[in-house]
Amino acid sequence: MYLHGTMRINRKGHLEIGGCDVVDLAAEFGTPLYIFDEWEIRKNCRSYVQAFKKYYPNSETIYAGKTFLTTAMCKIIEEEGLGLDVVSGGELYTALKAGFPANRIYFHGNNKTPEEIILALDNGVGRIIVDNFVELRMLNQICQEKNVNAKIMIRVTPGIKPQTHSYIQTGQLDSKFGFGLSNGQALAAVKEILKMPNLSLMGLHCHIGSQIFSMESYRVATEIMVDFLQTIRVECGIVLKELNMGGGLGIRYTSEDQPSTIDQHVETIASALKNRAEKHNFPLPKLIDEPGRSIVATAGSTIYTVGTIKEIPGIRKYVAVDGGMCDNPRPALYNAKYEAIVANKANQFPQETVSIAGKCCESGDMLIWDIELPTLETGDILLVSCTGAYNYSMASNYNRIAKPAVVLVNNGKADIIVKRETYEDLLRNDVIPERLLNKDRVLSEAL
Amino acid sequence: MYLHGTMRINRKGHLEIGGCDVVDLAAEFGTPLYIFDEWEIRKNCRSYVQAFKKYYPNSETIYAGKTFLTTAMCKIIEEEGLGLDVVSGGELYTALKAGFPANRIYFHGNNKTPEEIILALDNGVGRIIVDNFVELRMLNQICQEKNVNAKIMIRVTPGIKPQTHSYIQTGQLDSKFGFGLSNGQALAAVKEILKMPNLSLMGLHCHIGSQIFSMESYRVATEIMVDFLQTIRVECGIVLKELNMGGGLGIRYTSEDQPSTIDQHVETIASALKNRAEKHNFPLPKLIDEPGRSIVATAGSTIYTVGTIKEIPGIRKYVAVDGGMCDNPRPALYNAKYEAIVANKANQFPQETVSIAGKCCESGDMLIWDIELPTLETGDILLVSCTGAYNYSMASNYNRIAKPAVVLVNNGKADIIVKRETYEDLLRNDVIPERLLNKDRVLSEAL
Repeated sequence: MYLHGTMRINRKGHLEIGGCDVVDLAAEFGTPLYIFDEWEIRKNCRSYVQAFKKYYPNSETIYAGKTFLTTAMCKIIEEEGLGLDVVSGGELYTALKAGFPANRIYFHGNNKTPEEIILALDNGVGRIIVDNFVELRMLNQICQEKNVNAKIMIRVTPGIKPQTHSYIQTGQLDSKFGFGLSNGQALAAVKEILKMPNLSLMGLHCHIGSQIFSMESYRVATEIMVDFLQTIRVECGIVLKELNMGGGLGIRYTSEDQPSTIDQHVETIASALKNRAEKHNFPLPKLIDEPGRSIVATAGSTIYTVGTIKEIPGIRKYVAVDGGMCDNPRPALYNAKYEAIVANKANQFPQETVSIAGKCCESGDMLIWDIELPTLETGDILLVSCTGAYNYSMASNYNRIAKPAVVLVNNGKADIIVKRETYEDLLRNDVIPERLLNKDRVLSEAL
Repeated sequence: MYLHGTMRINRKGHLEIGGCDVVDLAAEFGTPLYIFDEWEIRKNCRSYVQAFKKYYPNSETIYAGKTFLTTAMCKIIEEEGLGLDVVSGGELYTALKAGFPANRIYFHGNNKTPEEIILALDNGVGRIIVDNFVELRMLNQICQEKNVNAKIMIRVTPGIKPQTHSYIQTGQLDSKFGFGLSNGQALAAVKEILKMPNLSLMGLHCHIGSQIFSMESYRVATEIMVDFLQTIRVECGIVLKELNMGGGLGIRYTSEDQPSTIDQHVETIASALKNRAEKHNFPLPKLIDEPGRSIVATAGSTIYTVGTIKEIPGIRKYVAVDGGMCDNPRPALYNAKYEAIVANKANQFPQETVSIAGKCCESGDMLIWDIELPTLETGDILLVSCTGAYNYSMASNYNRIAKPAVVLVNNGKADIIVKRETYEDLLRNDVIPERLLNKDRVLSEAL
């Protein structure tokens, strides 16, 4: 397995992350357990900040909170000087509770409710990214009623379809997101906004997808967006000052993945923006990027205890762990591939090909098919890498399995940042109506 | 839309369930909201009980809790005289907290942890269904240490592959579940168990899959299992007295689905069992069936408020609702199809073809593609039917969206059985480590 971040193999032959022996973490905190490598998170944040400093200083890096958001994560993002992209009232509430500066929050989403809009306005969120005409008119009306002004961007669908899983392609015209560019909806939206005194249009946003390897897609998208900035100048007589290119840089889950670096990604967007703006003699806007996965995915790992092992001679060896699609739905959802290492046998060579099964009552609950590992035994600690993005955030309680704890490791220290769910947590909101508690009633009355 | 259970259209042109106007439910409890039709749940339970009484009285119907389990649901299942199938410590804990009789609980799962086994033993669970050799030996050891006896069944993989989604095919030999029949593992397990004084082998279990329409699969599976009971009698000299055929009957989600009735399903298994047993002159065992989806799926609906509407002329009209893959991941996971009705326009004819989008920040978050509905407006109440199974149970907090409330409706009365999650619930387990709160520290020390 590729060793990400601060992963190393110590003298005991155990895997370490952030100076913490993973086998010790399993003993101390139990399994399954999400482990986040603080150094790797901060390193990735700084890679963005430094790349933008180098290629395009008038810029802001915004962390896409949907990948992994907790109050502690907000603190790290704030310390690193990044902004925050939220997509729901729950994410916004998390950020506010963590004391994240509201003016550095960008609020996205294709269907914000009035309550969410009001929460954003009342707390002075920096930018609301308007997704469609219905939202535009609702936002304007709410702003009028509250007699406040909102700084907005609009989400534009540039008509790009990068090569990635169809669920996470977001830039094509036939999308639930954004104002279409090619069919004139985006320009019509700009014109409508310019008549709305309570809305200040600050710039444009686009998002072409997620887990993207092709820098060419970013170059083309950037050019399309700059062309549209120029169109707006020509058609409406205004020069927008912000361009948000939306993130989406891919990461290396397995050796099949060949992502570009953060530096290459930023350089691509920055160059395309500068060249295209020069062509139009367009004043360089502030450039915003919204990475999520490329900040946090490689920083996260999930450890499991190996439980039952089922060998079907000549067919397959199934090794079951104490988690599965409940804590990592990505293999079932996207056929996502992961690597793994046996944390207590980290220096041993592969001995056999096995498939890693989850514990949920469903054949689809398989974490990894056909991976070469040292011979596994019940009680071994298996670490699946690159689970930092879209694992905790997408976790369910399927089979009434409680969500794992999350620990943040750094410099030999491990701190809980999300406590493990208990059985009591699972039942907290359950209610038995009085009438179902009355044992004396005649049962036939129930129908 | 097909009207399930007690659904009817009232004089206002609104949809009613259990005598409750769905538009009123939306106003009272908010949206999204899961609505369960108590009459439909009880009717389905009784259909099983009555069919077995008719075709095979020596039987037990066990509700598969993984489809939808809360403490109130346990009460209904108990009242209807069904047993309960649990697949995790969390489900077992739920049943115990609801006061469900432990001796009517069957404990399944491909990777039960020692803690879960102990919870089951300490509470006198009726049957533990052993899945593989590792579990068998662990269970025996724990029983020896505790000096207790456990009544068990073994899960057998009969080598059947019914036509359904590959994630929910569970009877094929290459499966994480069960002891293979054709390769001799199941017989070897029986022989091993007979040498374990703390384990009492009560019978066999198999499960061929879920959402199954073909009764032929059940007939064949039943015959294979009876043949195996006979093999055990011949090889080991014991007559097992219980056969658990595992449920899996499909339901009608849309008009594409043509499920068999509960009566047909039970008749098929009962006939196959009687015929095959007669052939071997094998004493008729107790027959157990474990329906989940066919009890609860059609009893559940999810209502949403229509939010933003995005029309892309000539391409598609997207209608976004205030939930999505967070409360119903089945379209994204299995490409599952659903029907819907506009609860406040239930008597109107379809006017247009739209696609129903969720509010999660992901293109894959689409609930229904291309459905004909009356013209939708923001604020309309959209009901998606047949969401009773694997919706609440698989719900996540993706995008930090809180889980909806669940109400049970019957005879004009609506009772909350699961309270709506709050933003506070989402943050309940978040922790910010002390060192991230210290604003005075030198930031560079963090790396």
